[in-house]
Amino acid sequence: MSRPKPLSGFPEFTPDARIVEQFVLDRLRETFELHGFASIETRAVEPIDRLAKQGEIDKEVYVLHRLHAEPNAPAELGLHFDLTVPFARYVLEHAHQLQFPFRRYQIQKVWRGERPQEGRYREFTQADIDIVDTETLAPHHDVELPLVTLAALERLHVDLGLPPVLMRVNNRRLAQGFYLGLDVSDPAAVLRQVDKIDKIGPQQVADLLVADVGLTASQAKMCVALAEINSADESFVDSVRALDVNHPELDAGLELLSTVVATARAYVPGRLIADLRIARGLDYYTGTVYETHLVGFESWGSISSGGRYDALASDGRTTYPGVGLSIGVTRLLAPLFARGMLTASRPVPTAILVAVDAEDTRADAIAVAEQLRVRGIATEVAPKADKFGRQIRYAARRGIPYVWFGSVVGEVKDLRSGEQVAADASTWTPPEDDRRPRVIATSS
Amino acid sequence: MSRPKPLSGFPEFTPDARIVEQFVLDRLRETFELHGFASIETRAVEPIDRLAKQGEIDKEVYVLHRLHAEPNAPAELGLHFDLTVPFARYVLEHAHQLQFPFRRYQIQKVWRGERPQEGRYREFTQADIDIVDTETLAPHHDVELPLVTLAALERLHVDLGLPPVLMRVNNRRLAQGFYLGLDVSDPAAVLRQVDKIDKIGPQQVADLLVADVGLTASQAKMCVALAEINSADESFVDSVRALDVNHPELDAGLELLSTVVATARAYVPGRLIADLRIARGLDYYTGTVYETHLVGFESWGSISSGGRYDALASDGRTTYPGVGLSIGVTRLLAPLFARGMLTASRPVPTAILVAVDAEDTRADAIAVAEQLRVRGIATEVAPKADKFGRQIRYAARRGIPYVWFGSVVGEVKDLRSGEQVAADASTWTPPEDDRRPRVIATSS
Repeated sequence: MSRPKPLSGFPEFTPDARIVEQFVLDRLRETFELHGFASIETRAVEPIDRLAKQGEIDKEVYVLHRLHAEPNAPAELGLHFDLTVPFARYVLEHAHQLQFPFRRYQIQKVWRGERPQEGRYREFTQADIDIVDTETLAPHHDVELPLVTLAALERLHVDLGLPPVLMRVNNRRLAQGFYLGLDVSDPAAVLRQVDKIDKIGPQQVADLLVADVGLTASQAKMCVALAEINSADESFVDSVRALDVNHPELDAGLELLSTVVATARAYVPGRLIADLRIARGLDYYTGTVYETHLVGFESWGSISSGGRYDALASDGRTTYPGVGLSIGVTRLLAPLFARGMLTASRPVPTAILVAVDAEDTRADAIAVAEQLRVRGIATEVAPKADKFGRQIRYAARRGIPYVWFGSVVGEVKDLRSGEQVAADASTWTPPEDDRRPRVIATSS
Repeated sequence: MSRPKPLSGFPEFTPDARIVEQFVLDRLRETFELHGFASIETRAVEPIDRLAKQGEIDKEVYVLHRLHAEPNAPAELGLHFDLTVPFARYVLEHAHQLQFPFRRYQIQKVWRGERPQEGRYREFTQADIDIVDTETLAPHHDVELPLVTLAALERLHVDLGLPPVLMRVNNRRLAQGFYLGLDVSDPAAVLRQVDKIDKIGPQQVADLLVADVGLTASQAKMCVALAEINSADESFVDSVRALDVNHPELDAGLELLSTVVATARAYVPGRLIADLRIARGLDYYTGTVYETHLVGFESWGSISSGGRYDALASDGRTTYPGVGLSIGVTRLLAPLFARGMLTASRPVPTAILVAVDAEDTRADAIAVAEQLRVRGIATEVAPKADKFGRQIRYAARRGIPYVWFGSVVGEVKDLRSGEQVAADASTWTPPEDDRRPRVIATSS
């Protein structure tokens, strides 16, 4: 059999990149748990009818058949394409076992049967946090969710050297209240046009608002003016007030968005702005919406998005509103790996290799290794009894920083400095920095 | 929409069980890394022709179709049904980027499209370790692999209270050499009959060896006698020698198996025996074979199996021999959860709830929470401003052990003792045992 070829859209990492991915996932998990989110995992499959509910996305679903099923047996199961649909189903199915508001995080692979292209994956990892309650969900959770997400992304920046992020936040109630205050009859139609502002520019959007939505030139100008407002502090409120539009929903939206901005400034300064142009999903979400880019790599698209749904799930009797944010882990990491911007200091967990002089002393080497492991030092025993130089080369090729020679009372060599000293395996400890691989980040 | 029903064969854990599963996976990972195994993850799918190579298993494969693919478009991809087939493919595909011998662990879900029944899953998690080399793989890795696996399973027993295990080990070379020493012409046919000894008993097996395989009564008696030997120490060697059969392959097998037993006795005493009845997979594997049961729950079947392959993978030019062991994580945990033998001390990571007196003091509560989180204490802010008693009940329902009242200089209440004391959120720390949920094990 010849060498297998990679499958497009199914990224697979080498061991050093996988070490970085694990560090990233560990830090996300730690941050989510620090904020009281409980982990769940859902099965990879959902019934097709549950996956197909959402209009256009259904063509991206992978459906499952048993290889030797009856011909023409109908497909019943498909792979989930996000973690929101399965979470909504999990909440309905397990509601009697959960306490509400329920805070969960979920880090899993998802699959989309779409044609692969740059930056699109058919299998990728997402890390989602959501808070869901019964009937009503307090608005302060819209403030809490971006704080948790930004705290997580900030740790990736500070601890692991990933680029910093900027999250842009808007609120549907703000925009909707503004349009209603302008006496616009179809706010959703306005949103759909405003969403094009990055692509076609403000003047074109204003023209479309007049031509296609039936706004007056003055209404159109105001809608575009609103979309052009953004600020890293609460000054966006004054900018909106200066447009002199009034509506109770606008007031509610302004208050909520300024609380988000003020709280983020206190705890993750410089990472969040109010941006009244963010329309994506505004007619899907029902309150705050979030999107997040890596600073300097905006063209990669949003690496963390989400918002509030007034009805994340419903079983006919109870409605479950929720607010959530999803971090696209593969979308974040794969381009950084591909550009060589992120790697591990070594491709193995091993901190030290115990040399073996001759096969009949292997038991001594195992005894040395166990003395080291019992104190948490990742250790390999040389696979082959061999000469000094070959053992060194074996370790060096793997980036293992230390080699042990002799018995429990023996000698340890640091391959970087070349220094070799007498040591006792029951007490010797490598410097903290050498215990585990480290993440090495370089700006491209 | 009514309440969704669970899908048979797709187990899904509640948050408290998921906490236990995470602790188990963390400890497996730590042990594997301590022994120098590097993590990899492979994509969930493989080309059908790679999955279908192995005779009868192919009917259990789930194949994928895009929901809106052309009618009758041939299926090209299927979900992996184990982690060995994808690992073999990964080794061939990435060989130029790997250092051999390559030590990897892999913890992932696998899928089998079979009819569900008690103890069978259609989606389940496996934790595999393998060592693979080019052309030849040193025999001492057959000793190393069960040590690593038993070290991992022993931590689950000692740290988390899971039942202890017993691993049974045999070696194909031992059995094969013995049969050849008896002048048996078809050792594989003997193995297939000996494999039935647990079901039909030694006398029936001896009869079949005469009737179906054509052995003499004396040869048959010797083959059964070999299968009845087992020991927790190296005394099995004397028992085999007492049968007075000689062959160089037998000698090699005896030596290797006694090294496995002796080394395991030194490092994981009482957890491994030589059992010359273990035939399962002997005509698939080419050297040592392993299977492992939970002591007291033998009827659940093997929770960790594996062995050596002389050709784990081959690209026509290079052959890659390997030895591996797989832990069935779902198979191990799901019955323990179902019997209530294993749970978490609380279903949330949260150690402390910060009470909120009135919505306009929420910012103070967030400040308290941040003081606690910065020191690694998992903290939630109360979702609703409420009376003292309701805040306590909210925390109690979730098993959160502490509630904070007031500002950074405030008071903390231990809900178990009822004691409430003055404290400073910038220095207060819960006892180590309360920081994270603990695993609670009860013998059934």
